[in-house]
Amino acid sequence: MTVTAPAGFRAAGVAAGLKSTGAPDVALVVNEGPQFAAAGVFTRNRVKAAPVLWSQQVLAAGVVRAVALNSGGANACTGPDGFLDTHRTAEHVGSLLGIGAGDVAVCSTGLIGVRLPTDRLFAGLDAAQAALDAEGGDDAARAIMTTDSVPKTALAQGDGFVVGGMAKGAGMLAPSLATMLVVVTTDAVADAATLDAVLRAATRVTFDRVDSDGCTSTNDTVLLLASGASGVTPSYSELVEAVTDVCASLARQLVTDAEGASKDVRIDVVNAVSEDDAVNAGRAVSRANLVKCAIHGEDPNWGRILAELGMTDARFEPDAVDVAINGVWVCRDGATGDDRDLVDMSGREVVITIDLRSGDASATVWTNDLTAAYVHENSAYSS
Amino acid sequence: MTVTAPAGFRAAGVAAGLKSTGAPDVALVVNEGPQFAAAGVFTRNRVKAAPVLWSQQVLAAGVVRAVALNSGGANACTGPDGFLDTHRTAEHVGSLLGIGAGDVAVCSTGLIGVRLPTDRLFAGLDAAQAALDAEGGDDAARAIMTTDSVPKTALAQGDGFVVGGMAKGAGMLAPSLATMLVVVTTDAVADAATLDAVLRAATRVTFDRVDSDGCTSTNDTVLLLASGASGVTPSYSELVEAVTDVCASLARQLVTDAEGASKDVRIDVVNAVSEDDAVNAGRAVSRANLVKCAIHGEDPNWGRILAELGMTDARFEPDAVDVAINGVWVCRDGATGDDRDLVDMSGREVVITIDLRSGDASATVWTNDLTAAYVHENSAYSS
Repeated sequence: MTVTAPAGFRAAGVAAGLKSTGAPDVALVVNEGPQFAAAGVFTRNRVKAAPVLWSQQVLAAGVVRAVALNSGGANACTGPDGFLDTHRTAEHVGSLLGIGAGDVAVCSTGLIGVRLPTDRLFAGLDAAQAALDAEGGDDAARAIMTTDSVPKTALAQGDGFVVGGMAKGAGMLAPSLATMLVVVTTDAVADAATLDAVLRAATRVTFDRVDSDGCTSTNDTVLLLASGASGVTPSYSELVEAVTDVCASLARQLVTDAEGASKDVRIDVVNAVSEDDAVNAGRAVSRANLVKCAIHGEDPNWGRILAELGMTDARFEPDAVDVAINGVWVCRDGATGDDRDLVDMSGREVVITIDLRSGDASATVWTNDLTAAYVHENSAYSS
Repeated sequence: MTVTAPAGFRAAGVAAGLKSTGAPDVALVVNEGPQFAAAGVFTRNRVKAAPVLWSQQVLAAGVVRAVALNSGGANACTGPDGFLDTHRTAEHVGSLLGIGAGDVAVCSTGLIGVRLPTDRLFAGLDAAQAALDAEGGDDAARAIMTTDSVPKTALAQGDGFVVGGMAKGAGMLAPSLATMLVVVTTDAVADAATLDAVLRAATRVTFDRVDSDGCTSTNDTVLLLASGASGVTPSYSELVEAVTDVCASLARQLVTDAEGASKDVRIDVVNAVSEDDAVNAGRAVSRANLVKCAIHGEDPNWGRILAELGMTDARFEPDAVDVAINGVWVCRDGATGDDRDLVDMSGREVVITIDLRSGDASATVWTNDLTAAYVHENSAYSS
């Protein structure tokens, strides 16, 4: 179950011919109310795709009644004509559903710099509207996949309300205020301001802590839609917990399905002066190709980790930092620690613990190893 | 011809058994005067190797009479004992040459986090001292290689004076105030303050504009030694020009020999508001794995370039930026430009031109593509 798990939502996913493979590529998620409050966070990238620019305007009013999504083309770097394509997409969906275009968010993903074939897209939206179903969430999740190998969905059960979500994302995966395409739905009763605070609290510690390949997309979008159909108004903390659970699950699924990855790497930075310091240190290590190659080779090369830490402005003393890999403290006091031969890196998950010994803040950043498969996937053809 | 091309220098390179392969691994460069002025720039990494900490102290006095260099071990993250090893190395060389240890700079390169076998190192320095020769520069250049496939040397002829240099560097190659190990020598007459200004001017536009893999070393060192043996005192600009020529040649050689690279990529950022903006934009693109993979695949994927530009704080308008690849303007006004099929990326060198259309400053950054060979070289064994 996914975005249609909460009451008040219908969805569909269809194949519209945007992808040359014939796989599903157009999805529609409709909030049937009785309420239509929504919040969104978007890529921090200044080069924003047309659907991001459009959806930011839609979300400014705090109301979303439908989300039109497509894979097979990002509609980014397509100029004024590309923006018009998005605008017309929202108008098309609005007229299909009898709602205003200004209540229709649009999300696109795929190759940058290519116009969408709107005739096929609109025909696909027609078909999606006809297929809308209260069980259609899984189809929608499949239709937004690009290089994803599996659809990504999540569910959290609150006290009298439900939160569901779907996500796509496999490359260009270093969200800074959001990630890739994510739609989270709930039947809880909540106003737009509350949803905005909840969504920012949830994404800050989930999607914002994933850095698979250091590249931030032009299209990152996370939407949270509330139908109020449960009639239950959860407390702020209850709603944060449920939405965070769904976002954390989706974020973890993004890491596991990242392009070419053979390892999921959890970087725990502890005893930092501030949470920002911890995030900065973790993110620097997550982006270091030499560290990522070493992890791929199952080599507990802690020297490369220290070299990365030294390039951050996180506060620590180079001779008072400890590093553990899968629980073995191979670096103590900034120098050789326990026997590196004790480290077993054969599993899919690798945990790096960095003790900055400077404060009491901490943060976790997730990344992947760097593999020949990643190089192949991103050099053999345009994506 | 290399560091011994200028009058007043002798050098040697020998095999001391620090490398398991038996390849040369210890070098000595001696300034025989009559003058001994010197300058140095060092890694900006806060995790500094013991020889960097030592040599920074030596250079504070502006006098260097000898440089002891070794490959086969970086002596980084080795704690107080590692620093003592470097100190004893300088004392050993000082006693061999009858000079003070405080006039001996030390440079090390190799694996981080491993102590050097000082017995073998000192025996190697003894052998190097015995082999010192006015033609010994090439041997020295060979002895500092690690994963380098070729030694790197350069020469510039000034008006009555000569500048020579040698460098090593193949991975962890993103110098920020210096690069890897570089020794530049001249027989010009110049005081330490002049040499310092000259060296900073030269490295700022050469080594500082190389970013092969985004990882900055703990050991980066560039030294400039002047013997005054020519008796010629060049003007500041003459000396800057000659030293910059040598540094630019060495920097270019570093790019061509970077680990696993199949392309040398020149990123020209033009019409930026400031030189800093141009460097920041170029460096962001140089570090983007998705861009580097696309170049490896000879795919003129300008969308990935725009996505990177959007994550910098360089000033430009997303709908008023142009990008050319090997001279074909595939992106105009932030959207699709000329036919990408016109781009020929089959050669070793790829030139990316980014026109920010915001000012009149420019900068060039050099980088490499990302290849499966890079992944293999950095995952198959510790380095």
